Amino acid sequence: MNAKVRLFVDQPLGAAQPVALTREQAHYLFGVMRLTVGARVALFNGHDGEWQADVAEAGKRGGVLVCREPSQPQSTPPDLWLLFAPIKKARTDFIVEKAVEMGVRRILPVQTAHTNSERIRQDRLQAHAVEAAEQCGGVFVPEVTELAKLDRVLTKWDTQRRIAFCDEALVGETGRLPHAPGAWAILIGPEGGFSDKERRRLRGMACASAISLGPRILRADTAAVAALTLWQSTLGDWA
Amino acid sequence: MNAKVRLFVDQPLGAAQPVALTREQAHYLFGVMRLTVGARVALFNGHDGEWQADVAEAGKRGGVLVCREPSQPQSTPPDLWLLFAPIKKARTDFIVEKAVEMGVRRILPVQTAHTNSERIRQDRLQAHAVEAAEQCGGVFVPEVTELAKLDRVLTKWDTQRRIAFCDEALVGETGRLPHAPGAWAILIGPEGGFSDKERRRLRGMACASAISLGPRILRADTAAVAALTLWQSTLGDWA
Repeated sequence: MNAKVRLFVDQPLGAAQPVALTREQAHYLFGVMRLTVGARVALFNGHDGEWQADVAEAGKRGGVLVCREPSQPQSTPPDLWLLFAPIKKARTDFIVEKAVEMGVRRILPVQTAHTNSERIRQDRLQAHAVEAAEQCGGVFVPEVTELAKLDRVLTKWDTQRRIAFCDEALVGETGRLPHAPGAWAILIGPEGGFSDKERRRLRGMACASAISLGPRILRADTAAVAALTLWQSTLGDWA
Repeated sequence: MNAKVRLFVDQPLGAAQPVALTREQAHYLFGVMRLTVGARVALFNGHDGEWQADVAEAGKRGGVLVCREPSQPQSTPPDLWLLFAPIKKARTDFIVEKAVEMGVRRILPVQTAHTNSERIRQDRLQAHAVEAAEQCGGVFVPEVTELAKLDRVLTKWDTQRRIAFCDEALVGETGRLPHAPGAWAILIGPEGGFSDKERRRLRGMACASAISLGPRILRADTAAVAALTLWQSTLGDWA
């Protein structure tokens, strides 16, 4: 039987491979989940697929698991990035969780003219992405980058990567996702919308397309899931 | 200038129409939002569009607003229902909020074989739908029905209304939304998936189609937004 507990580990996985646990992992498995020697745990590290492992040693400050058999091949989402302007903590966490479930390669928090948040805890958001992958059965964890100013991100943008940006000002207008394969990024504006200057700049970039998400105003977290759905179902791996 | 505060009222709206406030509404406008006589409030009631109104009387236990001018015509979302199995409180609230933003006519919580929740507070969820419409600038509030057993809902189903159901067991398979106009419902399974019996029953209904939401497992709340996006962008009012 496959394990119910899933754990991301930053170590190589393979047949008979022992995996040493950190103090936090040992606390979670043996203190919180109450696992004992012999119990099964599913492990993934983002590149070796998922492995079923058994608890070989269980201690308060550490422990060892041993990989037994592969249970899911490695898979990597399409080359899609999500750029978004961080909002309130709960909704920012939510956007990270949803991006992991929907399948993106990289999550980039960006500071726009109308972004309220001045800073984010990158390490906390990265841990949240790991947790989301653990919970949704995924084997890939997107990198969450440090908060960067949108202006700067666009200045050094590799124009081989297309951008689909969702603009509140587009509500009710049409704006379809171009059927162009290759690398993409989705950019979700902040709750107050992009500034006129940001909008002009984006509209001036040949690699950027404004896309419409219907006649109703969506919150940023809803817009993220909706835009990722449109992309995945037309250009991504849902087809 | 248009009002920043939006309020749903269960009363007729029209030119020069006075609107008496309930005690709770008066508390919100004058106690929480600190509005005074002459302040502007946006009102909607789900069928007369949005109106800009002025505070004419402000008291601790009540007050009167007077409608000045229409600011948004009435609009009603396409004939789409959302059926879902209630989960934890926060995620159930979230599904209701997202259904309002995405545009559905009716929200139906259903009890499936694998639903954990035995009961819901229908009045609380309906109030949550009102609040979501107030916050997203909508003028329509979908009805939230009482929790009903999925079996019974399907037994008395009007087969003129098609069903798109999202099945965890379909992860990785194809299953596209049929391009059939008319009345629709989207049914999101519970976190544990449908039971075999439910799945057989749904697959046996000519009006029901299983749709796939890609190769990764989505939480119920993510699946709801994703399925609503697919429907709205192909059969709904996003086209």
